[in-house]
Amino acid sequence: MKKIALTPVNSTRLINHGPVVMVTSGADKPNIFTAAWNMPVAREENSAIVALAINPDHYSYHLIKEHGQFVLNIPGMELLDMVIICGSTSGREIDKFKETGLTPIKAQAVDTPLIGECIGHIECIFEDEPRPGLILGRVVAASVAEDLFDECWKIEEVKNRTIHHLGGKYFSYPAERVISQ
Amino acid sequence: MKKIALTPVNSTRLINHGPVVMVTSGADKPNIFTAAWNMPVAREENSAIVALAINPDHYSYHLIKEHGQFVLNIPGMELLDMVIICGSTSGREIDKFKETGLTPIKAQAVDTPLIGECIGHIECIFEDEPRPGLILGRVVAASVAEDLFDECWKIEEVKNRTIHHLGGKYFSYPAERVISQ
Repeated sequence: MKKIALTPVNSTRLINHGPVVMVTSGADKPNIFTAAWNMPVAREENSAIVALAINPDHYSYHLIKEHGQFVLNIPGMELLDMVIICGSTSGREIDKFKETGLTPIKAQAVDTPLIGECIGHIECIFEDEPRPGLILGRVVAASVAEDLFDECWKIEEVKNRTIHHLGGKYFSYPAERVISQ
Repeated sequence: MKKIALTPVNSTRLINHGPVVMVTSGADKPNIFTAAWNMPVAREENSAIVALAINPDHYSYHLIKEHGQFVLNIPGMELLDMVIICGSTSGREIDKFKETGLTPIKAQAVDTPLIGECIGHIECIFEDEPRPGLILGRVVAASVAEDLFDECWKIEEVKNRTIHHLGGKYFSYPAERVISQ
């Protein structure tokens, strides 16, 4: 899947509509964590700030705090099984890249790897934790699958659409792109 | 539209999948503001915390800070035109309830009104502002259209589905409810 770079400012468009992200953290022994609770917080002149809520008991929380960086990888629906596995197991017990067969790929600006099979990536440096488990990140690089994005996600051409978590075992994905008047 | 109460803890399921919300603030002269950047932050024993990003220049920002409360109202696709109006005009210049014809309804636990035509409501007390424009709210009450929700949004039965903002003039809505294995 060919990826193109997005500016950090425009990276907010990857998660503007509320998809699940697969968060990678760590470097030598990276982990993967599934998170529905994420959002853009601010667009600045040359950067953007994103927020991620994560339980401080989780292994990924400690990796993010220890390494000071993380990546929000946006999966398409074809990765739903992997999203479930990474959201219901602990990196303390298993190597999630090995367990899922997902491919770690070198990032542009951080040491934490991207997930090659994901359709978008937001590379972040830890910025602040204003409340336990509420992580703010500064976006330093971003990329997206070339054929799936123009000024936003091209839903009508994306067979492999973003995943949205309704709660529990229920998920959804966007139906079509609607242009407002 | 008949609404049923949801516990504050379960209110997170109304926005778990990333819909646009119409934020009401103020009391005597309430305002409406459209926000794509919102998420749950924590589920606690008897409450929940939600986050909302809002430009500090906006009129609603001042109303939230002044009154210490706000409501996240979840619109369905039939309100897309109202979502656009409330996201592109200022409450300093117009009365958005009057402009849109939307109906202010008495809330359960706050003085700020709900929007009667919306399909879900999360009533919040201002909790903290850890960064300018990043508002945290404590959920004190919530409600949802009775026929559209069981343990989460019943997408397959919801003709009036939640709105998701892809960016700029582009929007989407959930296609169906997928049950993971």
